[in-house]
Formats: sequence, C-alpha cells, structure tokens
Amino acid sequence: MKFSPLVDELIQSLRVLPGVGPKSAQRMAFQLLERERKAGLKLADSLQKAMSDVGHCQGCRTFTEETLCPICASNKRGNAEVICVVETPADVLAIEAGGHFTGRYFVLLGHLSPLDGVGPEQLGLALLEQQLSSNDVTELILATNPTVEGDATAHFIADMARRHNVVISRIAHGVPVGGELEYVDSTTLALSFNGRIKL
Amino acid sequence: MKFSPLVDELIQSLRVLPGVGPKSAQRMAFQLLERERKAGLKLADSLQKAMSDVGHCQGCRTFTEETLCPICASNKRGNAEVICVVETPADVLAIEAGGHFTGRYFVLLGHLSPLDGVGPEQLGLALLEQQLSSNDVTELILATNPTVEGDATAHFIADMARRHNVVISRIAHGVPVGGELEYVDSTTLALSFNGRIKL
Ligand SMILES: [Zn+2]
Ligand SMILES: [Zn+2]
Repeated sequence: MKFSPLVDELIQSLRVLPGVGPKSAQRMAFQLLERERKAGLKLADSLQKAMSDVGHCQGCRTFTEETLCPICASNKRGNAEVICVVETPADVLAIEAGGHFTGRYFVLLGHLSPLDGVGPEQLGLALLEQQLSSNDVTELILATNPTVEGDATAHFIADMARRHNVVISRIAHGVPVGGELEYVDSTTLALSFNGRIKL
Repeated sequence: MKFSPLVDELIQSLRVLPGVGPKSAQRMAFQLLERERKAGLKLADSLQKAMSDVGHCQGCRTFTEETLCPICASNKRGNAEVICVVETPADVLAIEAGGHFTGRYFVLLGHLSPLDGVGPEQLGLALLEQQLSSNDVTELILATNPTVEGDATAHFIADMARRHNVVISRIAHGVPVGGELEYVDSTTLALSFNGRIKL
C-alpha cells in the first residue's frame, strides 16, 4: 500500500511526462490536490481533447486539429514556393519568431534514426516528394538540427530533392554545432538563413 | 499565432504543474502527441477522477477517495493510541517505509505560515484536538520538518496538546537541520524516532 488508489494512479499516470520521476510526480499530484483542483480539471480536459482531436497538417505534417495548420492555410505568406524542412513544431515557432522567413514549412517530427525504426516513411518524406514534384516549389531549405542525425537527414532529403527541379540549401552559419535549433536566438537563426549553403 | 488552438491550450494547461516552464510544457505536449496518446488519455482520466473524487481522510486528513485512508481504516496497527503529526502525505510514506512506527498519523498538509494565510484552521488542528480530548490517545509525536516553520508548528501543537492528558514528543536526532523529512533515509528516520525528546 502506498497512497489511496486514485492518488497512486494519478502519480503513476504523471510519470508519462518526460523528465518526471517518482518524486516529481508525487509533488505534482499533491500540489494539484491541495490547491489546483480547477486547473487540474482543465488540464484533464485539454489532454483529452488534444489526444483525441489533434492530427497532422496535410500540408506540413505539424500538429493541428484542422486539415491545414494556420501557416499552411494562410494566403499571406510572401514566398509560398520556398519550403523549409525542420525537425519539430518548436523549430517552426523559433523561425517564425525571427520573422525573416516567409515561405512554408515541412515538419519531419523527428530525424532519421534506423535503430529506433525511424525511416523515410516515419518522416513523411513521400508527402514532401509529392510537393517537390509539383511545379509550385522552387527552393528547399534544410533546417534540421546541426547534429549527426540532423545532418544525415538533411543529406538524405537533399539526395531525394535532386531528382526534382528545385534549389537545395542547408542553413549553416550561426547555429552552434551539436546545439538544438529550438534554443537558438532569432538573430543567430537569421544569420544561419542568410549564410545557407547550396548543396 | 503560436500553434493550433488545442495544442496551445494543452501547453498552457501543463504549466499548472510545479516546475514546468514554457519550454518543458512544449516538450511534454509534443512527446504526448507524438508517441504517448494512450498514456496521455490515461493521464486525463486519472486527473479527472482524482480532482473530482479525492477528499480528505476523516481520521488523519491525508488525501483519499474513501471516508478513511487505508492506515486509519486498518485494525492491524499495533499502537493506535499514538499519533504522529507530519506535514505531508509523502512524510507518511517515508515513515511507513521504515516500518518501525505502528501508530496512526495526523497529516497537516502544510505548516503554520501566517503570511500565506495558513493558520490552525487550515491545518485541521480542531480535528486533532478533538482526537486528543478523547481518551484513546496516549502519545503525540511531532514529526514536522526540522525547519523554522516546522519547529514553530510543532511548538504550537505542543502548547495545544498540553491541555490534554498525552505525552508529547518531537522527533529529534538524525534528521538534518533545514532538511525535508521526505528525503531522509529510513535508518536516520528510525534514529530520530528513538531519540525523540519529551516536550
Ligand atoms: Zn501546415
Ligand atoms: Zn487517515
């Protein structure tokens, strides 16, 4: 016996969250029970709706409950013929915060990682190739993370894109090696866009 | 615009959890959406049930969905006439893990903190006094944290308990000053029980 069944179950369930161990889960459960019941119910509701209703954007694969995400649905993007490939939705946010990129995105939701069973299919590359083979796309900017896996993924996509009539580039200057795009400031990100290298 | 409304809402809702800032909340939301949908729904369900159904044990005030928590409901405790006062349910767990205490508990769910509006009423001391005035209780062990607030709370309760016919003690040796009971190993906790000082 530890706590009462419902309290134990809440503590166990909280451990699905990344970075939450047994002690943190206990602290979270008690804080919610002690003084955040309303916010706890709101979290339950948000989770229920998001887990059930959020799917993938049919344009860029990012998470959305609509057919198209707000960026793909917008007709106000200046360079809709340029696609920027990133690993995560947070990367989109980071680049949008900079405000210098006005094209569209393609969100891989990961990077190639054969040992974890993540191949071209898991990254939705068929959808990306379909977009490249339409005549609407003129340039592909590869903005995967500057890590071993991100580089490998960028090269794989570049090889695929060479079969199509598009300019291919990789963001380069400014992003620290081994770092994660999401944590880079917007000036550095802007530099890395300007200094992109044609592949 | 950040993400889609349901994704934004999930990220916002996750921030109610202690220690979860904007970046952690994003990481949690994406991890759940990417590969823990089932566990996310389970968490929603656990939260919903716990926030709605968990109340306080009528014996010791700890969190439970029943009238009495498993410890208060048990008739197998060897020293039911001894009450150990602790600050949190996690402290009960820590003491139970040691296995040397066979009395009952009283869980304050906090400590006296006038500036935060936490007085005797918030700690349920009327219920404790009611138990002390019955003839069933022979000893009161004050196991609040060895911090300024925990000490002040212990002294306040000791003063209250002196009006009743009970032996009053405070756990003492072994628990590091300024530390938190919950993080003390069970041997140290056992020592601090044996070395308790009569007040
Ligand atoms: Zn989209
Ligand atoms: Zn109880």
